[in-house]
Amino acid sequence: MIIMAIFEQIVKPTLLLDSERAIRNIRRMGKKAGEQQVRFRPHFKTHQSAEVGEWFRKEGVTAITVSSVDMAGYFADNGWQDITIALPVNIRQIQAIRELSGRVHLELLVESPESAAYLEQQLTGPVDVWLKIDAGLGRTGLAWDAIGPIVNLARQINQSSHVRLRGILTHAGQTYQAKTPDDVRRLFGESVQRMLQVKDALQAAGAGTVEISVGDTPGCSLSESLGGVDEIRPGNFVFYDAEQYALGACAVQDIAVALACPVVSKHPERGEAVVYGGAIHLSKDWMYEEGRMMHGLVALPEGDGWGDFLAGAYVDRMSQEHGVVHMRSEDLAKLHIGDLICVVPAHSCLTVQVMGEYLTLEGKRVKTMNK
Amino acid sequence: MIIMAIFEQIVKPTLLLDSERAIRNIRRMGKKAGEQQVRFRPHFKTHQSAEVGEWFRKEGVTAITVSSVDMAGYFADNGWQDITIALPVNIRQIQAIRELSGRVHLELLVESPESAAYLEQQLTGPVDVWLKIDAGLGRTGLAWDAIGPIVNLARQINQSSHVRLRGILTHAGQTYQAKTPDDVRRLFGESVQRMLQVKDALQAAGAGTVEISVGDTPGCSLSESLGGVDEIRPGNFVFYDAEQYALGACAVQDIAVALACPVVSKHPERGEAVVYGGAIHLSKDWMYEEGRMMHGLVALPEGDGWGDFLAGAYVDRMSQEHGVVHMRSEDLAKLHIGDLICVVPAHSCLTVQVMGEYLTLEGKRVKTMNK
Repeated sequence: MIIMAIFEQIVKPTLLLDSERAIRNIRRMGKKAGEQQVRFRPHFKTHQSAEVGEWFRKEGVTAITVSSVDMAGYFADNGWQDITIALPVNIRQIQAIRELSGRVHLELLVESPESAAYLEQQLTGPVDVWLKIDAGLGRTGLAWDAIGPIVNLARQINQSSHVRLRGILTHAGQTYQAKTPDDVRRLFGESVQRMLQVKDALQAAGAGTVEISVGDTPGCSLSESLGGVDEIRPGNFVFYDAEQYALGACAVQDIAVALACPVVSKHPERGEAVVYGGAIHLSKDWMYEEGRMMHGLVALPEGDGWGDFLAGAYVDRMSQEHGVVHMRSEDLAKLHIGDLICVVPAHSCLTVQVMGEYLTLEGKRVKTMNK
Repeated sequence: MIIMAIFEQIVKPTLLLDSERAIRNIRRMGKKAGEQQVRFRPHFKTHQSAEVGEWFRKEGVTAITVSSVDMAGYFADNGWQDITIALPVNIRQIQAIRELSGRVHLELLVESPESAAYLEQQLTGPVDVWLKIDAGLGRTGLAWDAIGPIVNLARQINQSSHVRLRGILTHAGQTYQAKTPDDVRRLFGESVQRMLQVKDALQAAGAGTVEISVGDTPGCSLSESLGGVDEIRPGNFVFYDAEQYALGACAVQDIAVALACPVVSKHPERGEAVVYGGAIHLSKDWMYEEGRMMHGLVALPEGDGWGDFLAGAYVDRMSQEHGVVHMRSEDLAKLHIGDLICVVPAHSCLTVQVMGEYLTLEGKRVKTMNK
């Protein structure tokens, strides 16, 4: 194993960022959206970093998605002027929402008459809202096939002075449960069809002509056609991760983050190495691969980055600061206490969130809003 | 539902800390250790806070356990002089270890001849080490029943100039998998017996008389007798959590932290409310209760704290910022958009880690090393 300079400076769990790959991922998705004349409003919850945001800006991105009022504030402070907060509006943060809507173009998600009425009553200036539609995920949103409540809420909003109806929005996160790329395409296509039906129903009811916003990384990565929607909001695609790889949504060369972890313990009798790198570094998120729950896949340092996945190796379990890595005995035999291994997380968004900082392969520290 | 002043100031996910309960938990565990003449070296990875540390100091605690070199540095900066880093030593951090061992009494965990040799070679002053023993958990440590390697490592250390053998240490985390309090007691007792056997074997081999350090919250909470060990290192007991409650290791009135979360969405047809409060607030850790994976139990604000658990309510699934809470329809019907619910996490340590800050029931912000 050749350890280069970047790895020599690492003494504890460190989140490596391959900026070339990330920029290539941004460019690819931007091109796809551009060719199909779909607005590209990437979700910044994955990277949470002003500096990574600049890479998007260089590719022509001007509109973004965030997952909290605080994140909207952070990116507003960093020059972003067109921000959608993609969580059903938390009315307890009305004061911060009012302040933000005074300095940037803010778009909110509404799914209940109570929230819409509260915004109308509490806001002094106009704000755009999207009706959150559940097109199959079963998390938040008005059910796509219960047209009555959707039309009623659209009408309520149309009668408001401060709240303006921009469109209908969904997150087809059910694609994460798909087993094959074809499955992803089918689920994505189905969710788009459902959104088109909702749009038609609103129009037929005289509730206005609305835009459609969709966006999940598997669907946006794997579907050739974005299906005539107005906007996509993928986030994870900037880095991808082990789950997206397992789903076929990216190639191994597209994965742009990995957690470098020092080996602290070896257990050949169990085929396991233990690394310093646990739930507080990787998050405790998981994926299922071949029926087994795992927290990440494993590669070794190679040149100034990391190599292909080590066959048969994965993070089997984790505690607060320990990660238990299963690997083949021949690979384990080559590993020494103090060596580094690179863990590609099951889910990169949460790993970024807990780490709060990246080290690029050029040796530069890049902060997120959490550091 | 009566919403008091403490809840009126909460606009987003906030980690509530009932300091009275925490102090009572500290006092109870300290008393148990004192009565049995066992050193009480609580694990500070649960609270990670200088201020909470002071509550321990007031109860006479002078020696602590931490889970990383950084955490040792933080508590050393806050006046703690006797610190065990309870992770097999990460030799890549030798520089920080050297610096720390120069200003506090530092104790390290060693389980491989390589690490012991590296410390001997790199340290200039003396440091105490514990042999990490695996007494049944299967994570790190030398297997308790493979006496040969244990004796060899003890002999290697006995011949060192800088590395001094303090004792043998285990974490009987297998108690977390127990189904009943009796099961916990049996597993704890078994792990103590195994440690006593290792101690005897070392003595018989002429490898010295060693101390025994154990410590897991279920075992230390539920076992009347601490079984003649020299030191206990429980951590989670300061706050407990839903998992400890389910295990019978604490009463509902012992639980000292809960995450207050605003309701953003209601889905009576599924018996679910969605809160602003997801994996980045609660962590994505889980517990199994009645065969179901869940992320936390649920209570409602009551007076200046939270009430008993809401029957049948639990956090069923989470994404980055959303938590999906299952509850009975009669409870859901009483809940409004913007109301707060209190989630008692499956595992409080990781929730504290991601939140980084507490709000006491008296309205005071208490920071951890992460904020």
